[in-house]
Amino acid sequence: MLPNHVSEIRRAVASLLRQASSDAKTVVLAVSGGADSLCLADAALATRERTGLQVVVAHLDHSLRSEASQQDAEFVRAYAEQHGVLCAVERADVLGLAAQMRCSVELAARRARYAFLARVARKHGARAVALAHHADDQAETLLLRLLRGTGSLGLRGMRPLSPLPGATDLSAARPLLRFTRAQIERYCQACGLQPRHDASNQSLDYRRNQVRHEVLPFLERYNPNLRATLARLADIAADEAEFVKQAAQQTLAQIAQVGAEAITVDRMAWRALHAALQRAVLRQAVEWLHGSAYSPPYAAIEEAREVLNSSAGAGEIALTRSVRIKVSWRMFTLHVKAEPASL
Amino acid sequence: MLPNHVSEIRRAVASLLRQASSDAKTVVLAVSGGADSLCLADAALATRERTGLQVVVAHLDHSLRSEASQQDAEFVRAYAEQHGVLCAVERADVLGLAAQMRCSVELAARRARYAFLARVARKHGARAVALAHHADDQAETLLLRLLRGTGSLGLRGMRPLSPLPGATDLSAARPLLRFTRAQIERYCQACGLQPRHDASNQSLDYRRNQVRHEVLPFLERYNPNLRATLARLADIAADEAEFVKQAAQQTLAQIAQVGAEAITVDRMAWRALHAALQRAVLRQAVEWLHGSAYSPPYAAIEEAREVLNSSAGAGEIALTRSVRIKVSWRMFTLHVKAEPASL
Repeated sequence: MLPNHVSEIRRAVASLLRQASSDAKTVVLAVSGGADSLCLADAALATRERTGLQVVVAHLDHSLRSEASQQDAEFVRAYAEQHGVLCAVERADVLGLAAQMRCSVELAARRARYAFLARVARKHGARAVALAHHADDQAETLLLRLLRGTGSLGLRGMRPLSPLPGATDLSAARPLLRFTRAQIERYCQACGLQPRHDASNQSLDYRRNQVRHEVLPFLERYNPNLRATLARLADIAADEAEFVKQAAQQTLAQIAQVGAEAITVDRMAWRALHAALQRAVLRQAVEWLHGSAYSPPYAAIEEAREVLNSSAGAGEIALTRSVRIKVSWRMFTLHVKAEPASL
Repeated sequence: MLPNHVSEIRRAVASLLRQASSDAKTVVLAVSGGADSLCLADAALATRERTGLQVVVAHLDHSLRSEASQQDAEFVRAYAEQHGVLCAVERADVLGLAAQMRCSVELAARRARYAFLARVARKHGARAVALAHHADDQAETLLLRLLRGTGSLGLRGMRPLSPLPGATDLSAARPLLRFTRAQIERYCQACGLQPRHDASNQSLDYRRNQVRHEVLPFLERYNPNLRATLARLADIAADEAEFVKQAAQQTLAQIAQVGAEAITVDRMAWRALHAALQRAVLRQAVEWLHGSAYSPPYAAIEEAREVLNSSAGAGEIALTRSVRIKVSWRMFTLHVKAEPASL
């Protein structure tokens, strides 16, 4: 008989992959070769009969650790072959991309990875990509955001099921989000999996490594259950954010003309809204015009609110690099500018 | 001419005390004798002409540090005399109260203090009690709650204007909440105030002292602006919590019969609500029945939601020590039990 913690993880993986895949017959697994993604892959393979889902293992070699990176890729390829499943491995020049996009290596790696995963999913008719984020990642994400500064939106952390970043027609499924790294390592031991050591514990993100290796252990001296405490906070914040978002969508339907290129809002009706709803309405309008990846910073929202709540008659406000607000006396219009070529 | 930071603090104090006092002619100041409360008292006295408010200085001697406690009380009395303002000093046997109420010394002190401040306010016809909490206290409060576990309600931290704990007909005003301890100390220096040293920096609360002297300094290595970052989070969370609360109040008006002793809710209508709104509706009902001091713990709310969302037919659920829910098929009723004598 299977140990309890193994069947619990398998049940969670099977159930979320089935839910995320909707009527698709295939699901894509993002596999780095570390303990977390190997646990995910093993659980997805072990429950293939239950879910009826074919599995495609996907791995992007970021070319950042030269030989070690290639070995990770080989390891994943061998794993897929051994289990007779399809495997997509690609190589990306992340350093080059970062230079070209003028962004951090971490951001370039993230974008390249999600774009790759979306391509693999579309090629194989999958609707969902499974990611191996776990409860420790979630706690780190919340602490990072708390340290860097966040509102309640950021406190949602990662969700078990969300649109895939950069590809809102696909789902990102995170079935391990409720399990800790320790539980996942016990799964690997119980099932005789031998993960690549390096692939999981060092992040590309310097700040995340600080949080993982310094901040979280320090704070756990004050609350040994901090990971669970933060996970619960993320759940509550997610529910509230969703509720506020729904209210914003209903409100926009009542007080705005929503087009694909522009959203025109009745300024007086907007001014009568609660501050929290004013913010959510502006965010929702930006998301409809420009996708959820381009959420305006808090300071930009507050500056816009100040102008829109004042008696200022006419002008233009920049909310993000691409979304601007044209203000007039009785209404204001959010519209998209052409994206600069460098993005 | 006054230094900028002095006039800024005085403006903030005058404006909030005026707002909090409504049509009352007197305001009560809680004065420990530390830098923060001395700054508050000085600013309130310096702006008496502008606000038209008489000042009553109030000090509760907790009898916890024997001689030092008495010296604090003498110091406050002397300060009031020197400035020709009314002064109310009382002594409470906090250790005895804690034993009697079977609660922590810190909680007993807090209750005794607020009860005393409410008595002083009522005696002098004041509508508001001014408290000297500042931005560092606020950051500590948020960190304490994050470490201990909190939802978005806890993240509001303290608000500039709120009901006085235990006396909802009175206001607690915290005009220094946006100023840091360092700014307040600069105020004291600029105005030649000589606070009692001990009175402010050591809290009765062991956990708060840990956060003040260990956790906050540690985290500030990662974000030197952490105090401001946390204050902003508190503001955003407060706006959202208020918005959700308003929605809960409107919803209760639509789906419930609200009486003083019992609130009966249409169970099917409640089940159709968003999870965040279900929680807020239950909290609001408890607050209406039993006051805001008795907010049910998150776990109790979730257990109640599980029963109410299930097909369970009839039964009773405890939400707090005093508020219970009587469940039936089509509706449920929140009602208050008599409070146990020990409280």
